[in-house]
Amino acid sequence: MRVYNFSPGPAVLPQEVLEQAREEMLDWRGTGMSVMEMSHRGKAFISIAEAAEADLRELLGVPKSYKVLFLQGGAMGQFAGVPLNLSKPGDTVDYVNTGAWSKKAIGEAKQYARVNVAADAGEPYTNIPLLSNWKVSENAAYLHYTPNETIGGVEFHFVPELKNGTPLVADMSSTLLSRPIDIAKFGVIYGGAQKNVGPAGLTLVIVREDLLGRARPGTPAFMDYSAMAKEGSMLNTPPTYAWYMAGLVFQWLKRQGGLKAMGETNRRKAELLYTAIDSSSFYKNPVQHDARSWMNIPFVLARPELDKTFIAEAKDAGLVTLEGHRSVGGMRASIYNAMPLAGVEALVSFMKEFERKHA
Amino acid sequence: MRVYNFSPGPAVLPQEVLEQAREEMLDWRGTGMSVMEMSHRGKAFISIAEAAEADLRELLGVPKSYKVLFLQGGAMGQFAGVPLNLSKPGDTVDYVNTGAWSKKAIGEAKQYARVNVAADAGEPYTNIPLLSNWKVSENAAYLHYTPNETIGGVEFHFVPELKNGTPLVADMSSTLLSRPIDIAKFGVIYGGAQKNVGPAGLTLVIVREDLLGRARPGTPAFMDYSAMAKEGSMLNTPPTYAWYMAGLVFQWLKRQGGLKAMGETNRRKAELLYTAIDSSSFYKNPVQHDARSWMNIPFVLARPELDKTFIAEAKDAGLVTLEGHRSVGGMRASIYNAMPLAGVEALVSFMKEFERKHA
Repeated sequence: MRVYNFSPGPAVLPQEVLEQAREEMLDWRGTGMSVMEMSHRGKAFISIAEAAEADLRELLGVPKSYKVLFLQGGAMGQFAGVPLNLSKPGDTVDYVNTGAWSKKAIGEAKQYARVNVAADAGEPYTNIPLLSNWKVSENAAYLHYTPNETIGGVEFHFVPELKNGTPLVADMSSTLLSRPIDIAKFGVIYGGAQKNVGPAGLTLVIVREDLLGRARPGTPAFMDYSAMAKEGSMLNTPPTYAWYMAGLVFQWLKRQGGLKAMGETNRRKAELLYTAIDSSSFYKNPVQHDARSWMNIPFVLARPELDKTFIAEAKDAGLVTLEGHRSVGGMRASIYNAMPLAGVEALVSFMKEFERKHA
Repeated sequence: MRVYNFSPGPAVLPQEVLEQAREEMLDWRGTGMSVMEMSHRGKAFISIAEAAEADLRELLGVPKSYKVLFLQGGAMGQFAGVPLNLSKPGDTVDYVNTGAWSKKAIGEAKQYARVNVAADAGEPYTNIPLLSNWKVSENAAYLHYTPNETIGGVEFHFVPELKNGTPLVADMSSTLLSRPIDIAKFGVIYGGAQKNVGPAGLTLVIVREDLLGRARPGTPAFMDYSAMAKEGSMLNTPPTYAWYMAGLVFQWLKRQGGLKAMGETNRRKAELLYTAIDSSSFYKNPVQHDARSWMNIPFVLARPELDKTFIAEAKDAGLVTLEGHRSVGGMRASIYNAMPLAGVEALVSFMKEFERKHA
């Protein structure tokens, strides 16, 4: 029996997608082989790869002046990939710190460039710093921010448009595809796949073409945006099966009505859970209302000694992976695209019942 | 219906492994979720990851003084990863050039260190240079070679033991697990998974512990052997599903009798095909007999105008992906572990029949 899995990532996938993958496991459309067994340069896999890219472009409305890359290494790979591809040694790069992932990105960027922290929410990361207070550099190679922080549960509900023309770079690992976005406002968008896109091991990079060709000497070839763009992400063997799975997810998203519909559902799911938390004195979410994530909702109990009981009883009710991040404790419900409204409703019912029993 | 798939990689997987993956796709052992959906830090995935590493160590006889890393980025990632982790800027590093992949490794290493090509087979790469003629450096940070070249079909049937104590580094992408090896002779072994290990997107690195802690400043964190070893390959989210699939392959290898048994089967498969080629004047393999690969067997027809007919008729007979590499043309049969003897027998029968019809 399937459970409701609130894992922050790798995370729940649409059941239809898994069923299709199961169906096609030994023989993809009469080829007599699994997608895992296909040469990445053969017709069959090329058709899978191209369809996935076309569907992603359609879903996100990616302008023609952007390349879409299917890479490896995760967001952490891009923490190095971004400065290697977009800055020269000695360049200033702007970063906004809104949580654990921003902070890691900043740490890695310091290996490669002068980091100016243009804004810092500060621990325990419960808000988004006011845009008008950001101290951006005159000539930064780019400004990097993290639209959604999975650990703090903090999300930007606006795109910080910069007046100085600095390219905007966003780690969208945990928000990409959860709602419509205007790609044209960004220089580079990247994300690990394992939240809303597909299995871990695939990394999407969407890069404006005028930013290509800037990789510094010493950039590993497999991380070089231009080299990868030129070879259709096949300078080396790509993570073919993860690419295929992402393609199935994109098709599923189209069947759901695309990102506008997903965004509406995601807003509804998040509101349901935040309302349950806020209307009780037993549960608490510390994030400012205008900065609350639609994807990752941490909450604590008024009686933290009940944390383990909560996790255990939730598991018995088929609600799993609700543990908070090991760095913060408490609980966290990650409710990505593939978590149905029914899953959030089940969680809210469980929470009410748990409160009734233990408050 | 399943075909015999001679793809050089991504390549055929054992049918039993695919059947098990299909069976477990929606619910891994009562967890109610797919392995793809599991948090990499949860008990279930940790058990999968640890079992895979233990089985790999058992199969290869990896000494305790070596770390096994499950990374991303493929062999090409390690073309940079090796010099970044094992050499300082200005260091001399030795490379042996025996084919297209050696050459790419050399090209990438030049970004990071002084490359001395200790031996060069030269195009068209049909032999292994005599060890006694290698011009190794006095103080190289390491010597890198490619035990099996998938494009040329050239393989080392010995380990080049160096008298000067230079750590030996081997790109074993296309030979790892095809026969027993003595890990203790190596400093670092690495390989992309998509030949004998599992799906593309997973990269194995086996590194002697005394070589850890040498990564130069500017090494991307997700490529740093020491940082990854310290975190059990989970400094960032690993390619979880590929790791799981590799684990299923390791279990399958154990059921086949381990690497000794695999090596015997692989030798038999290769001999069968080389004998068929050599005993005919219609087919030809150009590689010196003592340097012929057990894994990748390129061959050309006496009448190259029949190449397309060969490929087409082979496909009709259920023998697919026999095209030679785009850089060399002709044909190539890759016969990794998961290609059964029956597949090679079917290919040999087809070749005889094709010759009878067209010679």
